[in-house]
Amino acid sequence: MDELVGNLLVAQSGGPTSVINASLAGVIQEAGRHDCIEEIYGGANGILGILNEEFIDINDEKARTIEGLKYTPAAALGTCRYKIDFKKKAEKAAKDMDRLFQVFEAHNIRYFAYIGGNDSQDTSHKIHEEAVKRTYALRVIGVPKTIDNDLPHTDNCPGYGSVIKYNSTTVMEVGLDVGAMATDDGSCCIIEVMGRSAGWIAAGTVLAKRGNPANPPHIILLPELPFEEEKFLAKVKETVAAYKYCIVVVGEGIKDPTGEEVGANKKLLDSFGHPVLAGAAEKLKELVQGRLNTKTRTVLLGYAQRAAAHCASLTDATNAFACGEAAVRAAISGESGHMVKIVREAQPDGSVKWSTALQPLADIANVEHFIPRDWISEDGYMPNEKFVAYAQPLIEGEVKAPVEAGLPKYVVLEKSKVEKKLAPREA
Amino acid sequence: MDELVGNLLVAQSGGPTSVINASLAGVIQEAGRHDCIEEIYGGANGILGILNEEFIDINDEKARTIEGLKYTPAAALGTCRYKIDFKKKAEKAAKDMDRLFQVFEAHNIRYFAYIGGNDSQDTSHKIHEEAVKRTYALRVIGVPKTIDNDLPHTDNCPGYGSVIKYNSTTVMEVGLDVGAMATDDGSCCIIEVMGRSAGWIAAGTVLAKRGNPANPPHIILLPELPFEEEKFLAKVKETVAAYKYCIVVVGEGIKDPTGEEVGANKKLLDSFGHPVLAGAAEKLKELVQGRLNTKTRTVLLGYAQRAAAHCASLTDATNAFACGEAAVRAAISGESGHMVKIVREAQPDGSVKWSTALQPLADIANVEHFIPRDWISEDGYMPNEKFVAYAQPLIEGEVKAPVEAGLPKYVVLEKSKVEKKLAPREA
Repeated sequence: MDELVGNLLVAQSGGPTSVINASLAGVIQEAGRHDCIEEIYGGANGILGILNEEFIDINDEKARTIEGLKYTPAAALGTCRYKIDFKKKAEKAAKDMDRLFQVFEAHNIRYFAYIGGNDSQDTSHKIHEEAVKRTYALRVIGVPKTIDNDLPHTDNCPGYGSVIKYNSTTVMEVGLDVGAMATDDGSCCIIEVMGRSAGWIAAGTVLAKRGNPANPPHIILLPELPFEEEKFLAKVKETVAAYKYCIVVVGEGIKDPTGEEVGANKKLLDSFGHPVLAGAAEKLKELVQGRLNTKTRTVLLGYAQRAAAHCASLTDATNAFACGEAAVRAAISGESGHMVKIVREAQPDGSVKWSTALQPLADIANVEHFIPRDWISEDGYMPNEKFVAYAQPLIEGEVKAPVEAGLPKYVVLEKSKVEKKLAPREA
Repeated sequence: MDELVGNLLVAQSGGPTSVINASLAGVIQEAGRHDCIEEIYGGANGILGILNEEFIDINDEKARTIEGLKYTPAAALGTCRYKIDFKKKAEKAAKDMDRLFQVFEAHNIRYFAYIGGNDSQDTSHKIHEEAVKRTYALRVIGVPKTIDNDLPHTDNCPGYGSVIKYNSTTVMEVGLDVGAMATDDGSCCIIEVMGRSAGWIAAGTVLAKRGNPANPPHIILLPELPFEEEKFLAKVKETVAAYKYCIVVVGEGIKDPTGEEVGANKKLLDSFGHPVLAGAAEKLKELVQGRLNTKTRTVLLGYAQRAAAHCASLTDATNAFACGEAAVRAAISGESGHMVKIVREAQPDGSVKWSTALQPLADIANVEHFIPRDWISEDGYMPNEKFVAYAQPLIEGEVKAPVEAGLPKYVVLEKSKVEKKLAPREA
């Protein structure tokens, strides 16, 4: 394989996580070790910024800042939800692709690392195929990222371990609080977590139980399984009778047996005439209070859960960093059209070691990975010991961010701009 | 002062906090140093458990467990919202008081430390007065606790520093997340925090700005000031124009100019015929999306914020512990009818030292302490440098809880029961 000399472009896409910047740090620090990579550019706001030729000059950043990315949440380069949609908008997609390669050529981009979830891996795949077609020498490697943990082939997705560590900690703490307040009347607290179609995030809070059935969470509602009102209410009632309180974790995307999202109430309209989307937790609260007359409170962690770097998993951050490094090493060695995946190596002493490997992007794009049904209890309300064995190693270890004046000291990139060479993109 | 020999009773009341157990540890460890205190009992679930003669034998607990209370959230003894209401239910209150003194006498309780907020200090005050009237030798000391920070005379209330440390951390993290996702369309995130009448908790998130006006939170809505829809929308619009995103922190109890809570929508009824109480954040989201067409998400921290010991302030936990110790020392030295208060001692080098002192319970009960108006910007949306100077020292330092399998290792009391000596309380 001939050495390919040129510039590296790295970008971040989709929803941020606690450790996506650790992957970015891995890409940057590894790229800095190879002479064949001349400039390191960051695409501002993912593919959107690349289309607009908005590049950040990474070699203008301080080494200390890059090091700080290892514990800084969110996407330091900025991110986007922009999708090059080859199916529904073929013409626009073709135009976008032309523009991308104009930008690549103008800046002599020869290495492209794209950190993201399913859509981003699909984009990377398309860019790789296009480069082959155009015989434009480009090495494209995808770096996995998603709190949803729904990418196939990789043992887990960077971001997932941290979100379930934070959410499990929260469930433990809220459980102690509600348990301390519980009187003979009983009480219930419903914690809504992310996860629109796959229930990995909700399921991960089973770790808060630490093997004790009495510990919260007492019920976990997964979006994969239809929500059955009567069965759920019976389970809440049974739990309150046993422990005086009940902690429910609900994945935001749970659906009733007809397939409609539980959080959407189409009968109620707000003052603008839109349906009231109270969210799953509010809907369940209404149900438990109305039917069981049990005092119920809700917690909606929202973006806080995927940004909670103050409670990030060191295992997760380390794997995220390793994926970034591995992407650059793979590209340097001549690979293209692959995603880095995380491989679990069970050790004889029960511990786990982690390594990385490559998987063709064609195997990744648009495939969603769900929790195996036999990792969940028969009644559907609790992941079992198979799930726990899978998830437990992912939350081990604590990322220690420096603290200043009582708050985490996160870094921000200077973002010095690379001079544009092309005319603005047509709208 | 003659030495008073007998047993000590300690109980916890009202909403739990991250550090109320640190106060409990202070009471217990200090009590263990004095020979005049024979037995140490914990009242299960506050005054309610005392009325029911439900005592926990603290000397049966391991020293290691008591030490662990210093970093364990919620109320280890259990808590309650039960109030002895001398105003509205005088007859029942008199009956409760009789019962309390029967219980005290049966168990030779001579020291009573009650850890709680306004209502609990009122209860302690009444018990002290009753003991004087009955010439029953009892030393009653209140220990302050409330995340609401609304007790008078004390510099701050244990629990407050920790809740604003966690909330400020969350605002920083969510701000990075939303900022990274912000495109030219702009986006908004509304974070609802506790505080029904006093805005101390919402105001405390100003610390996340770390002196930079561009940093979130961009708008803080305090329950003390009337919520004005148009003015608020204009401020959101201006913020999104400047920074592409806007983080709003709202105290749950904000009210419109007519005094009605913003979260309560009396026009909408749920399927049980109850008014829909979507909460302030959901209401504001509806407003921002509907009127400004700006994508808006919400975070509702709920109980998570007051239980987040994994992010507790060491200053707060240390003060909480010191209040517990001071309560016992005061009682031993012959004091009764006081609450321990925290005193701030500004040092010449700008740092702060903390000590404790006593304040008569008569000065505390039923007085609510609000943020001075001149600690808030003229437009009402941001606490100013006076507030920051007050709040900053309260979040300094990190409580380090031990970690096991990736999660905090909190302690649970054994709760061995003290044998009852009385007939059950009449219903």
